[in-house]
Amino acid sequence: MLTRIDHVGIACRDLESAVEKYCSVFGLTVASREVIEEQGVREAMLLVATAGAPAAGPGGASYIQLMEPLSADTPVGRFLARRGEGIHHIGYAVDNVRSALAEVGESGVRLIDQRPRHGSLGASIAFLHPADLGGVLTELVEPKRPQDG
Amino acid sequence: MLTRIDHVGIACRDLESAVEKYCSVFGLTVASREVIEEQGVREAMLLVATAGAPAAGPGGASYIQLMEPLSADTPVGRFLARRGEGIHHIGYAVDNVRSALAEVGESGVRLIDQRPRHGSLGASIAFLHPADLGGVLTELVEPKRPQDG
Repeated sequence: MLTRIDHVGIACRDLESAVEKYCSVFGLTVASREVIEEQGVREAMLLVATAGAPAAGPGGASYIQLMEPLSADTPVGRFLARRGEGIHHIGYAVDNVRSALAEVGESGVRLIDQRPRHGSLGASIAFLHPADLGGVLTELVEPKRPQDG
Repeated sequence: MLTRIDHVGIACRDLESAVEKYCSVFGLTVASREVIEEQGVREAMLLVATAGAPAAGPGGASYIQLMEPLSADTPVGRFLARRGEGIHHIGYAVDNVRSALAEVGESGVRLIDQRPRHGSLGASIAFLHPADLGGVLTELVEPKRPQDG
């Protein structure tokens, strides 16, 4: 069902300084910047790949998603207040997020999203409940296909 | 410097039930099981890949590393007591862990490991200090090459 680790989401207080740190320390490059009002975050997707090397395996690329909350009263804002900066969630790529959601739901894991919604880089995403997955907030990601335009 | 997300490390209280959950819910397969005394963990590496599909991009495969502490008085044991079950660290693949460590050290990030040590699946690994990386415990992983035997 899972084709690869699509991204790891990291909560930070200051997006620009986090982007600067990841780019300067590890040489990552910014693939996109977005404000996702629905999730209450300002974010940057950083491509994990060596310069000049193929950016992706057969299933696509992997990213670090740096997220700064738009306000304290958002999921990431509450996460920062409770746990401080750090890893927030893991996102796995799937071929079809609707069928993956149905399959996961049948296994008894609670779904935060009953239906897919819009994610970064034009993906369709859905979150699964961490209480049923050993404390790990888990996201399923169906990446935008090139032919989707 | 970073060629891909090699793995995400997840701390759990009961390795067998965590393995069973990840395999049954997501269809992951166990690539290896090890006891790493030096890190105080019993662990399983689960391959993230669709059955029948190529398991790896040009840089190799990605894994979920499930870790159960060997005792309460270990880093993962203390993590569980403090934060509960959940994501513990992220590991990035590098071509050469010694040169990557030197490069990261020059950038001012503190190194937990001044020299590489043995990790899962025969890799050479080194940890970087989370306090200098926005609360993210970060591991550099030089995977074992096939010719290493």
